[in-house]
Amino acid sequence: MNFGRERNQLEKMGKIKGGKILLFLLCLNIVTFGVIADGPPTCPADLGGECNNSGEWKGEFFPGIPKIKYEGPLSKNPLAYKWYNAEEEILGKKMKDWMRFSVAFWHTFRGTGGDPFGAPTKYWPWEDGTNSLAMAKRRMRANFEFLDKLGVDKWCFHDRDIAPEGKALEETNANLDEVVALAKELQGTKIHPLWGTAQLFFHPRYMHGAATSSDVGVYAYAAAQVKKAMEVTHYLGGENYVFWGGREGYQSLLNTDMERELDHLARFMEGAAAYKKKIGFNGTLLIEPKPQEPTKHQYDWDAATAANFLRKYGLTGEFKLNIECNHATLSGHSCHHELETARINGLLGNIDANTGDPQIGWDTDQFMTDIAEATMVMLSVIKNGGLAPGGFNFDAKLRRESTDVEDLFIAHIGGMDTLARGLRNAAKLIEDGSLAELVSKRYESFDSEIGRQIEAGKVDFEMLEKKAFEWGEPKVASAKQELAEMIFQSAL
Amino acid sequence: MNFGRERNQLEKMGKIKGGKILLFLLCLNIVTFGVIADGPPTCPADLGGECNNSGEWKGEFFPGIPKIKYEGPLSKNPLAYKWYNAEEEILGKKMKDWMRFSVAFWHTFRGTGGDPFGAPTKYWPWEDGTNSLAMAKRRMRANFEFLDKLGVDKWCFHDRDIAPEGKALEETNANLDEVVALAKELQGTKIHPLWGTAQLFFHPRYMHGAATSSDVGVYAYAAAQVKKAMEVTHYLGGENYVFWGGREGYQSLLNTDMERELDHLARFMEGAAAYKKKIGFNGTLLIEPKPQEPTKHQYDWDAATAANFLRKYGLTGEFKLNIECNHATLSGHSCHHELETARINGLLGNIDANTGDPQIGWDTDQFMTDIAEATMVMLSVIKNGGLAPGGFNFDAKLRRESTDVEDLFIAHIGGMDTLARGLRNAAKLIEDGSLAELVSKRYESFDSEIGRQIEAGKVDFEMLEKKAFEWGEPKVASAKQELAEMIFQSAL
Amino acid sequence: MNFGRERNQLEKMGKIKGGKILLFLLCLNIVTFGVIADGPPTCPADLGGECNNSGEWKGEFFPGIPKIKYEGPLSKNPLAYKWYNAEEEILGKKMKDWMRFSVAFWHTFRGTGGDPFGAPTKYWPWEDGTNSLAMAKRRMRANFEFLDKLGVDKWCFHDRDIAPEGKALEETNANLDEVVALAKELQGTKIHPLWGTAQLFFHPRYMHGAATSSDVGVYAYAAAQVKKAMEVTHYLGGENYVFWGGREGYQSLLNTDMERELDHLARFMEGAAAYKKKIGFNGTLLIEPKPQEPTKHQYDWDAATAANFLRKYGLTGEFKLNIECNHATLSGHSCHHELETARINGLLGNIDANTGDPQIGWDTDQFMTDIAEATMVMLSVIKNGGLAPGGFNFDAKLRRESTDVEDLFIAHIGGMDTLARGLRNAAKLIEDGSLAELVSKRYESFDSEIGRQIEAGKVDFEMLEKKAFEWGEPKVASAKQELAEMIFQSAL
Amino acid sequence: MNFGRERNQLEKMGKIKGGKILLFLLCLNIVTFGVIADGPPTCPADLGGECNNSGEWKGEFFPGIPKIKYEGPLSKNPLAYKWYNAEEEILGKKMKDWMRFSVAFWHTFRGTGGDPFGAPTKYWPWEDGTNSLAMAKRRMRANFEFLDKLGVDKWCFHDRDIAPEGKALEETNANLDEVVALAKELQGTKIHPLWGTAQLFFHPRYMHGAATSSDVGVYAYAAAQVKKAMEVTHYLGGENYVFWGGREGYQSLLNTDMERELDHLARFMEGAAAYKKKIGFNGTLLIEPKPQEPTKHQYDWDAATAANFLRKYGLTGEFKLNIECNHATLSGHSCHHELETARINGLLGNIDANTGDPQIGWDTDQFMTDIAEATMVMLSVIKNGGLAPGGFNFDAKLRRESTDVEDLFIAHIGGMDTLARGLRNAAKLIEDGSLAELVSKRYESFDSEIGRQIEAGKVDFEMLEKKAFEWGEPKVASAKQELAEMIFQSAL
Repeated sequence: MNFGRERNQLEKMGKIKGGKILLFLLCLNIVTFGVIADGPPTCPADLGGECNNSGEWKGEFFPGIPKIKYEGPLSKNPLAYKWYNAEEEILGKKMKDWMRFSVAFWHTFRGTGGDPFGAPTKYWPWEDGTNSLAMAKRRMRANFEFLDKLGVDKWCFHDRDIAPEGKALEETNANLDEVVALAKELQGTKIHPLWGTAQLFFHPRYMHGAATSSDVGVYAYAAAQVKKAMEVTHYLGGENYVFWGGREGYQSLLNTDMERELDHLARFMEGAAAYKKKIGFNGTLLIEPKPQEPTKHQYDWDAATAANFLRKYGLTGEFKLNIECNHATLSGHSCHHELETARINGLLGNIDANTGDPQIGWDTDQFMTDIAEATMVMLSVIKNGGLAPGGFNFDAKLRRESTDVEDLFIAHIGGMDTLARGLRNAAKLIEDGSLAELVSKRYESFDSEIGRQIEAGKVDFEMLEKKAFEWGEPKVASAKQELAEMIFQSAL
Repeated sequence: MNFGRERNQLEKMGKIKGGKILLFLLCLNIVTFGVIADGPPTCPADLGGECNNSGEWKGEFFPGIPKIKYEGPLSKNPLAYKWYNAEEEILGKKMKDWMRFSVAFWHTFRGTGGDPFGAPTKYWPWEDGTNSLAMAKRRMRANFEFLDKLGVDKWCFHDRDIAPEGKALEETNANLDEVVALAKELQGTKIHPLWGTAQLFFHPRYMHGAATSSDVGVYAYAAAQVKKAMEVTHYLGGENYVFWGGREGYQSLLNTDMERELDHLARFMEGAAAYKKKIGFNGTLLIEPKPQEPTKHQYDWDAATAANFLRKYGLTGEFKLNIECNHATLSGHSCHHELETARINGLLGNIDANTGDPQIGWDTDQFMTDIAEATMVMLSVIKNGGLAPGGFNFDAKLRRESTDVEDLFIAHIGGMDTLARGLRNAAKLIEDGSLAELVSKRYESFDSEIGRQIEAGKVDFEMLEKKAFEWGEPKVASAKQELAEMIFQSAL
Repeated sequence: MNFGRERNQLEKMGKIKGGKILLFLLCLNIVTFGVIADGPPTCPADLGGECNNSGEWKGEFFPGIPKIKYEGPLSKNPLAYKWYNAEEEILGKKMKDWMRFSVAFWHTFRGTGGDPFGAPTKYWPWEDGTNSLAMAKRRMRANFEFLDKLGVDKWCFHDRDIAPEGKALEETNANLDEVVALAKELQGTKIHPLWGTAQLFFHPRYMHGAATSSDVGVYAYAAAQVKKAMEVTHYLGGENYVFWGGREGYQSLLNTDMERELDHLARFMEGAAAYKKKIGFNGTLLIEPKPQEPTKHQYDWDAATAANFLRKYGLTGEFKLNIECNHATLSGHSCHHELETARINGLLGNIDANTGDPQIGWDTDQFMTDIAEATMVMLSVIKNGGLAPGGFNFDAKLRRESTDVEDLFIAHIGGMDTLARGLRNAAKLIEDGSLAELVSKRYESFDSEIGRQIEAGKVDFEMLEKKAFEWGEPKVASAKQELAEMIFQSAL
Repeated sequence: MNFGRERNQLEKMGKIKGGKILLFLLCLNIVTFGVIADGPPTCPADLGGECNNSGEWKGEFFPGIPKIKYEGPLSKNPLAYKWYNAEEEILGKKMKDWMRFSVAFWHTFRGTGGDPFGAPTKYWPWEDGTNSLAMAKRRMRANFEFLDKLGVDKWCFHDRDIAPEGKALEETNANLDEVVALAKELQGTKIHPLWGTAQLFFHPRYMHGAATSSDVGVYAYAAAQVKKAMEVTHYLGGENYVFWGGREGYQSLLNTDMERELDHLARFMEGAAAYKKKIGFNGTLLIEPKPQEPTKHQYDWDAATAANFLRKYGLTGEFKLNIECNHATLSGHSCHHELETARINGLLGNIDANTGDPQIGWDTDQFMTDIAEATMVMLSVIKNGGLAPGGFNFDAKLRRESTDVEDLFIAHIGGMDTLARGLRNAAKLIEDGSLAELVSKRYESFDSEIGRQIEAGKVDFEMLEKKAFEWGEPKVASAKQELAEMIFQSAL
């Protein structure tokens, strides 16, 4: 924000005098990401430590929480894994290498519990109610303690989650650098980002889009922001870089030039791909489809729409997709469908592991708890040979009403165990083999000589007509869907 | 909020020192209803006047905006009515008496343009960035200038829209009294609230519900709040009092005792009805159905669900319904259906005049622009003999991206004209008579002797069987839906 | 159908001569319920037996299928139960007494695989392509062999499923009597209908509704049909009688008098209840809610809507509800929600055990395969103390593409095992107790003295306000949704 | 169908003897497309003429119906155009040349009113209850009288609509040839098909798909059928050829190899494009997207999905899209969105002019009646420079309950008038110019030097960052959505 300009205008309007403006600007700073929790503290953590304002938090952030360990399916301990056993081998690979779990900084450390009808509800003990640089650093320390206790070695972030906006872009970038330096230090040798991204949707400047804004100044601003976020992701050893276009879309076609906006988006993506190469960043660029919300229509509606965009503009070599399960269902598809669509198009790069409510028309970003869904997800991941350099990012948040610090752990453990259970089930199905056999048997007539020729594009319509006359009415076998479901369910 | 308690806790935690706390509390005050716009001012209004901090705004709020007048359908002036001509008589009643339009204080004066993915975008010239009492009064003055220029004499409000929360309920009530006194003065003799209501969903204390909270303290707090809001509505000459239960519902059945919660809700409604009588308030009590959002399931899902609740607990004599069109479509019904359901159950009391996007699964609260929908709405209203003491409240908001002051006027004019056009069309249909004739003809076989007896409950199954044998196979006539649609469309 | 009238008309029109009409009428008979399968026979059953046209099928209907037995979770045999062990006791009751499974005659024996875009696909070996009385009897024998092999002792039927329409209602009733006599004989002492019902939606006479038809002749015809179906259900020892109003609703409000139609529906239900008493039938009358399809809006939209109807017309004592899971999700609710709503209103009478596709907007009537959903269903059933005299009816059909006879068994086994697994999981949850404890703890503040008084309706708003002042800001605890989900998932 | 094989099997099974089989086969013929109406004739037309069985219907088919003429907006005559005036010029082109209306043979002449829960309801006077060749010819005569009276000179058909299947493909083709010869004769010089297509979804052989069937024999059969349908369309002077893949998709991913199926589909489309060239057919090949129904997922989900398919397999030069409005809304988009997406991708070829119910999750194929929607559709068509060689095909059907012959006319007149009104409104908007100006003004910052360079792909991220620093915080203007809606609505 250009506070200078704003201040002048306010003063000119004569509405606000002197010290009031200072307060106003300070407050603006606070609310930039809606971080304020004005509810009562609800955390059970006993905070005996001292805390000063410099960001140097002396105590533990999660004093009552142990390192989360695997205790097996019979454990009743909410703070233990029942299914996720990081070092255990499944289908020739360690569980942790299949899963490549990542914690999303924004939901876990910037999620406030606010919703369109309600104020924030979460008041974590380490928060001081500001969006200051000191607070940003303190949060970063909390993040690394959280990762450590959870036993996860990857994290994801938006630039603006981890450091506050300054008065101008220069200051904002400086803020970011300062926090990133700390993160680099805290990462040590084992931890790094699964991916980074730029937040191009929250600030009002992006209300008409970032790369697709009707305003050229916003386009440039967005490019500058992505440039910086990419540099920072590279510096931290991030393995991928994500684009989620929450505002890249339209609210009404009446006032929108969709063709021109899509062209701008393509130019922007070309620029990003070029800059990636220039700085020697080898991470995958990922587009994250979502059908709508906050816009009526987002240009990356679903996997097929995003693939069409990439193909139209010749970008398929440069980008893959980050499939989010809740976005899948909002677009009218199962998560499994979107994963398979991405995979078949050679575009499956990463998974945002969450789930929606099947009866709700917006993104609830819940932690996955459906074992059957998790099993289907893992079947696709296994077919894909895993996700690396992508992984599973927990783009999932606590319910607004879950306000204990321990809930952060319980939710992640539940999500990780659900996917781990999915992996175990998928392995059972693959080892059993009867589901795969049922499928390949369905298509066996195409394994014939003529079938192979058809698949090779060597049989024209005249020959096919000849065959149709020759063969007469085809006999069509049962699709055995209920049997397939029975086999599938047996593995759960 | 109990700031005293909060402050102690913050100090005890040692996280925030001295002056910081003061700032924190001031800022909390600011964000209570998320009013901060941190974007650039976009209003065209030229504000030459002086403004001090006491709430005494000396200039006009809407200096470039004239009193909105009727100019007829050919006018191209965006700041004129093309269809709404307040004093014109339609079907024996003045347009203004059919419509009974009301401006919703919250959307118009507290709407910020914030959404789950974005910061506020609106920065009205009269806002100083605080949620102070002075600011509350200034906004109230803006409200009355807005009503005056628009030519509307009713308004609706939540208690917390118009006055800020204080440190404790006592202070909050005092704040409310102070603003209400000003509103009373500004109302003069012609203006009064269509309805008032209590905001029982924004504050984190209500995260589990108000009347249906799992916490008895919250139940009591909500009762105290409704008690006060009802008194205030009565004092201002409000004609109705509304309950919208945004948090009265559940997020998950796994942790919810739905039966107990519904019983609590009934006790609460009984208490409200009793208190209304006690203070001599004659306004209608209105329940506003909505299926979901923010909760997964709201207990007043749709008109039929609300009616079942009222009947189950013997409350039908005390309450009517406030039907909102966007809520109707979110529940899987047309707006017309919900209006007719309410009407048939003797419960149609008020309409929240807005519309949703047919492809979007959340409340967009757009101003109505669909003439056909407006015509159907007005057909129901006419059948109901009008809505008085209810009316049409514009529970509708500017799009997030509409940031000019004049947009507030354009949106209201568009909504009013759409409904006015609906009224004109409905009158045409009624005067033409062919649609009504088509309908009554469809049922004419029930106007026979036996039909009347059946309708009077005097024909048992044995007699009906006898008739069925006697009559043989019934001849069934065409339903003529396409003809009905053609007649309907001709009136648009 | 009044074929006499029709024939005259056809002849008068001069379009069809002599023998052609006979063929036409015979064919009409065939297609009355769309039973024709014109695809290739796909059944694996080896039919060595002889078959004449009298309905006396001499061989087995399912020669390759054994009696289905319980083999436990490790069995890979698709024709065995892995979880349903009829005589095993769970929570003090035999599994079969909790479940009270029933086979739906229509899906299993009249389902053809036809859909709005496709012809029938199923050609069962016992079908001869007609809708004759002889064929009806043969199917009835197949039904009882199916029940026997599956080990299920209840079945459900529509009148027109089991016997063909005749030229007039008298002949139709005679047809029905003949088949019912055979069914009575085949039932023996152990088997009887869970419920019967009248098919009031398929025949074109019902295109505008049955009890809500605009035509008084149709109303009478429907009453005669229900009267007969009720007698027949009673005669066969049926325990319930169901009303599903597929055509009781509207396609367009433009041509509909909804109020009058609802009044007619109420008169009809009163008549049915009176006739039930008259003939000494003690079965429960059940209304089956569905939101839409085939009509745009069905009058029994969901449980709450049906409850409102029953209350409005004073019918709650006479009727309960038959909740169908696929109908629940189509109305925007989880199945669990609808069951709880019915239960809380004292109306849970029976369950149509099926499931829909969460992304599909029409009734797919799939067999349930979701263990989590089944567990939640069983939690409600257990709270309800079971369903008797209701039960679980498999209102579920094979996919159109599943065309082997064995698929009928596989699908039912899968559905039964899913619910059996749900019962086992629910029992685990109840025995463990931590989920119930989590819930009751949430509401414990209402177990206080004041809480009890509030629940008894003894605390007015003034007292509540006093308490609110006294208590100050309430402390609100975490809702622990993720923990509840973790506990729930552990039981799966 | 291979009736020979079927007969043998039936005889072998010993179920059906002698003459019974003949009847069975005759009846099969009847039900092939579900054409039987067993309801009472409801047509008002007075059929004085004589009719023999040879298909030579001597009287008029629509004796009471005049040639439909334009009478202007004030006319109350349901059998007259109020807005469609074929020869009138709008924006430099005759209305008929903008619209290029076509009647869909299947809905108008093969629609029966059957639905998943109900039997056919329509019994047109010219139908004799058979699916014979004679009946097929009689229907074709009715079709041309209908076109003539409506004043429409284009029609669309599936191969199996217009001629019955024979015992084998050879006979089926011969049947088709015979009816096509008659159609050619009846067409004269003015009338021809807008497009033809092959029905690859109704017959059970296609239950697993046609080009995507798991069975190679079905693939060949489908190719033979498309080959023939393309020849026939070419012979009749058809201007386009359509592919609607109702069964090209999946019901469950558990038993489906989506990748292999999509590859087969691509081979099939390549074969079709090659055959088109071989026979010198210059018509456009059109793919018609639909998200689901009858399958859970159709491979041509929406315009973007179909575009991605075409691009992936290098088929964009060969195919365009046929956008159907009801399919658009089922896929979560407005019709306008799908049209614009097709247009922007250079793929807008034809429009199936219908509409769905916004609250209903399946294809209702209603005639369009929404003026606002029609106006937006026409805005896209005008931007596209018209649709030729495509046009507007009325893929729309009477409601099941509309059973009068005149309803066929009323429905088409209503649909044509709605679109004609849309054209008039669109012209008003274009002539007024303020909406276009509002849009172009929004993007004017891209008309600057730097904007142009960005659009030309000449500005890299480093330069953009430089600009961002230089420009500071961008000023973002209001999107003026409400103003755009007001302007739009003024034109209705």
